[in-house]
Amino acid sequence: MAEDIGFRAALDEAQKGASEGGVPIGACLVSAEGKIMGRGHNMRVQKSSATIHAEIAALENAGRLPASAYKGATMYTTLSPCDMCTGACILYKIKRVVLGENNTFVGGEDYLKKRGIEVVNLHNADCEALMKIFIKEHPEDWYEDIGEQ
Amino acid sequence: MAEDIGFRAALDEAQKGASEGGVPIGACLVSAEGKIMGRGHNMRVQKSSATIHAEIAALENAGRLPASAYKGATMYTTLSPCDMCTGACILYKIKRVVLGENNTFVGGEDYLKKRGIEVVNLHNADCEALMKIFIKEHPEDWYEDIGEQ
Repeated sequence: MAEDIGFRAALDEAQKGASEGGVPIGACLVSAEGKIMGRGHNMRVQKSSATIHAEIAALENAGRLPASAYKGATMYTTLSPCDMCTGACILYKIKRVVLGENNTFVGGEDYLKKRGIEVVNLHNADCEALMKIFIKEHPEDWYEDIGEQ
Repeated sequence: MAEDIGFRAALDEAQKGASEGGVPIGACLVSAEGKIMGRGHNMRVQKSSATIHAEIAALENAGRLPASAYKGATMYTTLSPCDMCTGACILYKIKRVVLGENNTFVGGEDYLKKRGIEVVNLHNADCEALMKIFIKEHPEDWYEDIGEQ
């Protein structure tokens, strides 16, 4: 149930990002009790931001919280998390990261596991299709977003 | 020279944060040519933010940039960077992280080195004093900022 809620919200955020002309990556942080704590999408294009990736947006949207609030939480994201977002999940001791796909990009999955965080790949075709279209149309925005080229 | 400019700006940011009642950590990103690209300080208290740590603020303040702009850059920060900020420096392939001190907190220094980033500790007493005062007066804000307690 929480799996559905979290992933659907993340995908919905990615689609919102796409409709805004932005990097179509969405994320949603779900508590141990299955409630949405925060959600958001990549804002590089929309806010000319170098740091508001989807996972960062979801954590920011969740607001200030004590460490206990993150206990047992899951970060749903439509794409394998970059090194920054990997680190953000480690900082707040997120229990599990569920990613939509990693065919487009492989981020810090191994390091998440090394730091004790469970990683699940949903191999979702919708997430991958969003990225494929975006990268074809705006390769420069995408490579800038991952610090390449 | 760049060392002076970058560290002074980071410390100045930390002092601004202190004067605002916030977590007194500042950062400044300096280019290979010795120019300030972006600077900022922790905004947990001021903006009720879970993600605007000093290094994130400096990267955000630098704006959208191609990967080439970060080449040879140094991130100056008044405190050893947390896992999120460590990951942000890795994402943008920052060349060097110069930190004010790590007596208050030890972040991802080993991982930065493992990922090829030079780490320099200035053992600066002013940076440490700012944190000592803040943690004594607002321990709950500090532990929340590092995802503890």
